[in-house]
Amino acid sequence: MERADKDLAFMLQYENIAWFDGGEVRILDRRVYPREIRFVRCKDVAAVVQALRDMVTQSAGPYTAAGAGMALAAYECRDKTKTEQLEHLTVSAERIATARPTTASRMRLITGGALAAAKTALETDASTIDAIQNYLIGANNMRYNKVYRMAQYLCDMIPAGGAVMTQCFGETIVGQMCRVLKETNKSGVRIFCPETRPYFQGARLTATVCRDMGMDVTVITDNMPAFVMAKEGIDVFTSAADAICMDGHVINKVGTFQIAIAAKYHGIPYFVTGAPDKVHTKVSEVPIEMRDPDFVLQAMGTRTAADGVKGYYPAFDVTPPHLVSGVVTDTGIYSPYDLDRYYSSGNMGEYEMVI
Amino acid sequence: MERADKDLAFMLQYENIAWFDGGEVRILDRRVYPREIRFVRCKDVAAVVQALRDMVTQSAGPYTAAGAGMALAAYECRDKTKTEQLEHLTVSAERIATARPTTASRMRLITGGALAAAKTALETDASTIDAIQNYLIGANNMRYNKVYRMAQYLCDMIPAGGAVMTQCFGETIVGQMCRVLKETNKSGVRIFCPETRPYFQGARLTATVCRDMGMDVTVITDNMPAFVMAKEGIDVFTSAADAICMDGHVINKVGTFQIAIAAKYHGIPYFVTGAPDKVHTKVSEVPIEMRDPDFVLQAMGTRTAADGVKGYYPAFDVTPPHLVSGVVTDTGIYSPYDLDRYYSSGNMGEYEMVI
Repeated sequence: MERADKDLAFMLQYENIAWFDGGEVRILDRRVYPREIRFVRCKDVAAVVQALRDMVTQSAGPYTAAGAGMALAAYECRDKTKTEQLEHLTVSAERIATARPTTASRMRLITGGALAAAKTALETDASTIDAIQNYLIGANNMRYNKVYRMAQYLCDMIPAGGAVMTQCFGETIVGQMCRVLKETNKSGVRIFCPETRPYFQGARLTATVCRDMGMDVTVITDNMPAFVMAKEGIDVFTSAADAICMDGHVINKVGTFQIAIAAKYHGIPYFVTGAPDKVHTKVSEVPIEMRDPDFVLQAMGTRTAADGVKGYYPAFDVTPPHLVSGVVTDTGIYSPYDLDRYYSSGNMGEYEMVI
Repeated sequence: MERADKDLAFMLQYENIAWFDGGEVRILDRRVYPREIRFVRCKDVAAVVQALRDMVTQSAGPYTAAGAGMALAAYECRDKTKTEQLEHLTVSAERIATARPTTASRMRLITGGALAAAKTALETDASTIDAIQNYLIGANNMRYNKVYRMAQYLCDMIPAGGAVMTQCFGETIVGQMCRVLKETNKSGVRIFCPETRPYFQGARLTATVCRDMGMDVTVITDNMPAFVMAKEGIDVFTSAADAICMDGHVINKVGTFQIAIAAKYHGIPYFVTGAPDKVHTKVSEVPIEMRDPDFVLQAMGTRTAADGVKGYYPAFDVTPPHLVSGVVTDTGIYSPYDLDRYYSSGNMGEYEMVI
């Protein structure tokens, strides 16, 4: 794809988050980025699965790491029989996809695509590693193009001179939103990023992308969104999602629900970006991952609470459709009550949207 | 006052936060408590004012420190003429009271009371230092008694086996709430404390008091209140306030407004504790203090955001009366639209309520 565009090049550096090379997967450690640039090196598929569980990378990062993990799986079994290779690749695809429960179905899009590419390669005696890598490049290019179109629809909702609030880290969509705002002479738009505890993805990742894209960006703590809406004239609240159920419920980083409530209170629309997840017909079918409760009792590695105090850590929350103003996709903005239309319009290819 | 009650004794250790002795004021540094027990030592009134500005202590702490600061002011000028002493005490009272703008009127209740006690002492050739100290002891005893009655009204709203959500640190009312819950056989009530960024008062202070009082206490991050309301069955949201305006608006630590919106959404009542501030007839007359924006770009001393990203730090927010279910005082629970009744009932003494 075209990389001459300076803004796009800036943006793409954030995509350089996980790759397979020389018999290992390297994953940018987003737990310490941007204060430190460090990579977790995975020598086998088990290490990739563990890195995903440990949240070394977030947002689109796990999908990129999952693809790289499939290339590593192919590398691991390259000297085995075809039957053994297929079995190892099939088992690895599922192990990687289910590393974290809430996103398993989206992860299967990547690991399943990589597995299919490897199968074709085995049938034609081609390199499974090359086949998976080529599949991933193609999938990524398709994703960039789709997210760019999505950003165009999203930015139509943002007035020149206005202000946007985000939540957590939208990865590619954040960079593409900034890119489109600049292309459409709306570079004066202010962006407010709640810091997104306990990992600070908003403060560390979202704000850094916006800064590097040359936008005016302000980090706030997670108890300030309602105040900022009341005082700073927010025009749009937007977030990506870990899952958009076909019944219009949005599953995203914990805090999204609360900001969506505050947005509704202030008459501010909430636009979620991403494709509806056909596999999730009802929100009740999606498990909400509960993580190590002690993790909320520290911040940036320093303990906050006294011993004997309990923690509580839901990774995600659920925003009901009546708080969602629109689902912004690559083919337009859909009502959260009308998501079948996204698929009935027949635009989806084999690689469905992943943010 | 009676200190034999074990629970009360536990609670009172948190009151031991600022005192005058031996020519200096010592203030417990709540910025590092409970992980570290450290005191800021103030050798003159200017140092007390600076400590207040630096938020060495919070919640009721500034009022206690202000009173101790007045004793220090008396000590500073003890060898001067009566006229000079009166002038120094008068100037000091105002300097201390206005250290932070939003709470100046409440601070004047303490510094003004101490000043009046010193004046009387000067007229009768008694010790101004002793007079101020005696005034502070009396004021504190009155406060404990009032807050205990307030806690009884608050706990009437909390069902046995229920759950309460707090915000920031309510100081004495938190301890007294726990005490009354235990006295009324409701010790099974669960308490959820949002951590309250950027200073983590909820994680560090509120949760520690609840733990020491033997309650079941859970810290959550500031983006989780709405999720916890939906999943954990919160019965009551409660907070103290930095100011309760006579028009029913509540000014409290930033985040209160957002949680009150989420509470309304979930049909959960929000009870604010404290006396209405007669001096604030309208919310528009109360300035909202904006603090150093860079402070939100770190957590527990470690920088979160990249350089070049802006911060934003309102110390307080404003919750309108239609989100307030009741103002819980020492004489009962009042509608936020009917706060004049608190004063027209004629129960207030010379030392009005300070939380």
